[in-house]
Amino acid sequence: METIGVSVPRLDAAEKVTGQATYVGDLKVPGMLHAKVLPSPLPHARIISMDTTEATRLPGVVAVLTPNQLQDIDPYYGAVVRDRPILAMQKVRYQGEPVAAVAAVDEATAHRALRLIQVDYEELSVVGDTDAALAPGALCIHESNICHDYHYDWGDVEAGFAEADHVFENTFTFPMVYHYALEPHAAIAHYTPQGMTVWSTAQHPFQVRADLARMFNLPLHRVQVIVPYVGGGFGSKSYTKIEPLVVSLSRAAGRPVRLALSVEEAFKTTRRHAARCTIKTGVRQDGTFVARDCQVVLDTGAYADNGPLVCQRAGDRIPGPYRFPHLKVASYAVYTNTTPAGSFRSIGAPQAAWASESQVDMIAAALGIDPLELRLKNMVARGEDVRRGMRPLDADAATGLRRAAEAISWGERPVPQGGVKRGKGLGCNVSNVGSAPTSTAIVRMHVDGSLTVMVGTTEIGQGSRSVLAQIAAQELRVDLARVTVLASDTAMVPYDRSTGSSRSTTLMGLAVQDAAREVQQQLLELAARHFACAPKVLRLREAGVAYQNASIGFSELIEQEFGQGAGELIGRGYVSPRRHGGQLMQSPVFWEVGISAVEVEVDEETGVVRVPHYVSVADVGKAINPQQCEGQDEGAAMQGLGHTLFESMQYVDGQLLNPNLIDYRVPLFTDLPEQFYTILVENEDGPGPFGAKGLGEGGIVAAAPAVANAIYQATGLRMTTLPITPEQMWRALKDVQPGS
Amino acid sequence: METIGVSVPRLDAAEKVTGQATYVGDLKVPGMLHAKVLPSPLPHARIISMDTTEATRLPGVVAVLTPNQLQDIDPYYGAVVRDRPILAMQKVRYQGEPVAAVAAVDEATAHRALRLIQVDYEELSVVGDTDAALAPGALCIHESNICHDYHYDWGDVEAGFAEADHVFENTFTFPMVYHYALEPHAAIAHYTPQGMTVWSTAQHPFQVRADLARMFNLPLHRVQVIVPYVGGGFGSKSYTKIEPLVVSLSRAAGRPVRLALSVEEAFKTTRRHAARCTIKTGVRQDGTFVARDCQVVLDTGAYADNGPLVCQRAGDRIPGPYRFPHLKVASYAVYTNTTPAGSFRSIGAPQAAWASESQVDMIAAALGIDPLELRLKNMVARGEDVRRGMRPLDADAATGLRRAAEAISWGERPVPQGGVKRGKGLGCNVSNVGSAPTSTAIVRMHVDGSLTVMVGTTEIGQGSRSVLAQIAAQELRVDLARVTVLASDTAMVPYDRSTGSSRSTTLMGLAVQDAAREVQQQLLELAARHFACAPKVLRLREAGVAYQNASIGFSELIEQEFGQGAGELIGRGYVSPRRHGGQLMQSPVFWEVGISAVEVEVDEETGVVRVPHYVSVADVGKAINPQQCEGQDEGAAMQGLGHTLFESMQYVDGQLLNPNLIDYRVPLFTDLPEQFYTILVENEDGPGPFGAKGLGEGGIVAAAPAVANAIYQATGLRMTTLPITPEQMWRALKDVQPGS
Repeated sequence: METIGVSVPRLDAAEKVTGQATYVGDLKVPGMLHAKVLPSPLPHARIISMDTTEATRLPGVVAVLTPNQLQDIDPYYGAVVRDRPILAMQKVRYQGEPVAAVAAVDEATAHRALRLIQVDYEELSVVGDTDAALAPGALCIHESNICHDYHYDWGDVEAGFAEADHVFENTFTFPMVYHYALEPHAAIAHYTPQGMTVWSTAQHPFQVRADLARMFNLPLHRVQVIVPYVGGGFGSKSYTKIEPLVVSLSRAAGRPVRLALSVEEAFKTTRRHAARCTIKTGVRQDGTFVARDCQVVLDTGAYADNGPLVCQRAGDRIPGPYRFPHLKVASYAVYTNTTPAGSFRSIGAPQAAWASESQVDMIAAALGIDPLELRLKNMVARGEDVRRGMRPLDADAATGLRRAAEAISWGERPVPQGGVKRGKGLGCNVSNVGSAPTSTAIVRMHVDGSLTVMVGTTEIGQGSRSVLAQIAAQELRVDLARVTVLASDTAMVPYDRSTGSSRSTTLMGLAVQDAAREVQQQLLELAARHFACAPKVLRLREAGVAYQNASIGFSELIEQEFGQGAGELIGRGYVSPRRHGGQLMQSPVFWEVGISAVEVEVDEETGVVRVPHYVSVADVGKAINPQQCEGQDEGAAMQGLGHTLFESMQYVDGQLLNPNLIDYRVPLFTDLPEQFYTILVENEDGPGPFGAKGLGEGGIVAAAPAVANAIYQATGLRMTTLPITPEQMWRALKDVQPGS
Repeated sequence: METIGVSVPRLDAAEKVTGQATYVGDLKVPGMLHAKVLPSPLPHARIISMDTTEATRLPGVVAVLTPNQLQDIDPYYGAVVRDRPILAMQKVRYQGEPVAAVAAVDEATAHRALRLIQVDYEELSVVGDTDAALAPGALCIHESNICHDYHYDWGDVEAGFAEADHVFENTFTFPMVYHYALEPHAAIAHYTPQGMTVWSTAQHPFQVRADLARMFNLPLHRVQVIVPYVGGGFGSKSYTKIEPLVVSLSRAAGRPVRLALSVEEAFKTTRRHAARCTIKTGVRQDGTFVARDCQVVLDTGAYADNGPLVCQRAGDRIPGPYRFPHLKVASYAVYTNTTPAGSFRSIGAPQAAWASESQVDMIAAALGIDPLELRLKNMVARGEDVRRGMRPLDADAATGLRRAAEAISWGERPVPQGGVKRGKGLGCNVSNVGSAPTSTAIVRMHVDGSLTVMVGTTEIGQGSRSVLAQIAAQELRVDLARVTVLASDTAMVPYDRSTGSSRSTTLMGLAVQDAAREVQQQLLELAARHFACAPKVLRLREAGVAYQNASIGFSELIEQEFGQGAGELIGRGYVSPRRHGGQLMQSPVFWEVGISAVEVEVDEETGVVRVPHYVSVADVGKAINPQQCEGQDEGAAMQGLGHTLFESMQYVDGQLLNPNLIDYRVPLFTDLPEQFYTILVENEDGPGPFGAKGLGEGGIVAAAPAVANAIYQATGLRMTTLPITPEQMWRALKDVQPGS
């Protein structure tokens, strides 16, 4: 009966490997039209006029959407700041921004119609990066080019620096990267005056529901957002993306409309923030950190999306898991004429850790202290404050770091072989997970004792359905094969805030556990009536309730109440900031620890960096399904190798040059480290069910500094700009500047 | 805010009148195949051999289903007796019985394939009617030709007859009729080894789920039965019909399969029981009833379906709403080689009342007593036993009858005009409603205070969604426009036993009311925390909670608990035999009173009977939505005129001659009485919410005897066989026997 801690096969495995699993792109809604979007060819321009006459006349075209048709709704949306319009209003702010859209009987017709739309633009000067945006006299993309700024401090950093024996100041740059989920964004919308149904790839269907309800002026019960299986999210499908556009088209056409973005269009929908982080750290001779002053500048692109929150999280995370008596952080999200940046696996953290954890090794090198020792010396212990005003550290990060170091035989320095230099590196991080603690769930026990679990968690490939089924099965002593998880249809399942921030196992897991316990309570009451005893002397056994030497099956108990073959028991689970303790939950819900230890090989001739050995440590509290935990963590680490070694969106004059898999290099199977594994730390100290805490984000955070630190050990070269492509590495090795 | 007792427009009105409402026939499931069924041409035969080789080879055919493919499942089903196979096993028992089936890429191919299937039959002698079935030495269709028999009695009828001044014995026959819902049966099944999804026209999706789970050996959570809008049921879609066949085809084909029956095929799927009822009644000179002996013989066709229950109900209902010191009832369901008979609006009651209420007028005429007075003299009063061992009468039937009589000016005898004779007639009935009291519901209040109500009640045109929305809206003081009712998807909504037996407003209504009250309780608790007071001093007002002079909106309360824009409240409603009173509910849940009063015109020349004035009285306890109540009751009355004047399935040698709208005459709009209305009796004495009780069946029951009684007053002719077609009436008027 034990299903917790067991690597049971994913519940969706059979469906997925046999190709039966349904994604938005597979759906056909009767009467459905196909949409295409006219992208702005210019990154920054005023729209002078638009003529859609020809497009409207094309046979097969049912609707041409222009800003004029959006006047009776609120066309703006945005996770934090509502600055993004469904279609560019008067002004375009990045190349690829939707300017108009067409719904037609097929995609080819819609595509032809786009070419018949005449738009006259007045070009504006391009604000291509954060330097340009912050330059005096820069043209403003919005009212200001500073989308958001975030500051905090304690102690007195200037006094701290004065007190320090050494002060280090370094700047690190992090590239603009794209999530590259296998499935680009897609949505089908069916709008009627009575309400709407939207099938979407959204990670957070309830937040999309709220936006659509607000924009189209409908109450929530009339907006149904359905999310079938999603082919990867990583934050690219967080919050509202193309849904309002598709709903608008359906409203204009009076029929259901489908829009499935191409990879290029998805690249021009959202991305991770590029960053430039400057860190100044004061240290005593013995390695004790005294003060740190951090400045983070994030390129948030043309619209805010989740940029303000990314800005805050990057600021929260840049000090790393270390004690600083004096700290000062300033973080800025800055508008530029590029694809809007938003959520991406562990928002703000890889950028921050790239800087912070690289500098730790630079300090260690300068002081002649072992980087592991320097980290352990300054690392906050369990129960100690990480950031003032937040939950104290609820994990043993130091032990995790020691285990990672051990796993790569940290003390043994690898020897170069031929023209290949070798080195080892470490990186570690603790992140305040972000999402608010609001999840609800329903667990229904059918009359045959089988279960249906109803949750808003979207299955984006992370295996949430399996884990939530395991929790319900365990609580109710039901065979896992007799549990179905129904997810992410806002009309059918109860509210969940989001799927992201490593939150589902912990927060939705608690909601499912509570709902299962409410069913359990009802079973015990029915059994107490049956046995004429108090509920408290009863206990659940497999699919039944035991009393002394007797027992009765769940099915029989339900039939006694409702009649033969009839009835069911319903349990509700609520997780809210107030529940689970009777007072507001402390923020963060938990600290997510991510630790990377790597060994690298640097080819002196080609500049190619290989990672033959990669160990990731994930503190999961309790692994409900160890195999899935490992899969999540390894996926995160591999994605981290992407921005470390390969990935970068390249803009020239506001034009994105490489929005495709040929020109944008993601990690390949051949890039997989030969030795690649995750160590799960299980202290059962998480706030989730069975002591679990979330994972899935920690693994990406420290990949880049661990690799750069290993490169330093191998070559003595300190890389401060990502990605460390062969060209960049080669130039460093040969000391050849770009352009020469 | 009052929505109870208000004729609010149906929630599904806009969808239906604009053609947007979706029925099973409208659905397209990706990869869906189309099915056709090979019907037996013979009514009774042994299957010697079947060759499907040619059909299987036809391009476009994906699966040919024969009994051989059903060996690894349980191929039998049936609401009471599991005697009906998915396909005829060895023996066919009625013309039209499915013998094999084909799934192909389109309907035309499937149809062509049917003609390639070779079946050799050995003909058996046809048991065409109940006389043939009960004749000594009759061939047995099943192990016995008696499907079910039902007896009860009290007193001593022989002593009663001896005591009586007059004894009347008469026999009445009731035709075989078809429901003729506008939408014939349809289903789409998608079977996979992991589970199945079935879209069906089923009235009772949870009972279909149970059958499919049992037959295909799956737990309940893996069987999803979805019922979109249904184009009329009237019992024809009660219990399991074509679903197992379509699932078997999908299983054989490995793809989704759609089967939509033609009208002819639907005629050969289910029908109402034909009946022959003999009643012997002993009466005193003053009209007091002393004893009654009833014999009901029902033609249940080739398979039991719901026949045993129909047999019991006909037996329960044949004494009518009168006192009998001595009573004896015997009721039989008898197999014949005809379409299986099952549920049809008020099972067994129109057959029983046809006999009982006709004889009351015959007794009145013989004794020279006014038929109204004779009824009132013998009618049971509120609180008196109708049938021993059942709930005493919970309605004032006598007052209802008086109101009906008044409405047609009973005392004034109409005068003949030209060749048109005119007369008035009454009929009345009380029925023990049938369905077990098990319903559950979920009510969800979203963070904007709007509601989603989740119920298993199927919307078969009766307006259930509107009424259940009204109940939730009223309980929670929410605007009706802010309520959605989600219905009849067994994966999504909680258990409901069935939609039929006039039960949904009462039993599902109670479940919805309870669920709404559980939400209310949570709102009051949240408000009590907000106002720092006890919940009991608070009261709901429109969309909020009031405390002294202050108030707070639902939305704000939910946000205080869950965070901005987040969360929801969930309420559960359980109705079970044990709930609502703490002990087993008494049966029936309520008595349904149906009263008809009519004026007829009989054309002496043509035999045409017209009904210019029809008044129906329905005791609804409380009309949640009066217009819908009237619509239900008038529909029932009109359907009653169908079997009274027009409808009869004609069999010759086991061949159904008229399975279509040309040869099978249903009432037309031109048959509508010029004066046609329903009087709603509202004593708020029902067990449902706000004192409601069910309706929708009562109106059909007394139509036939009321008309026949009026014909008697007009012509002096007593009709004992339905339908009273112009030919039959003309023969009676001219005293011309059939065949002459």
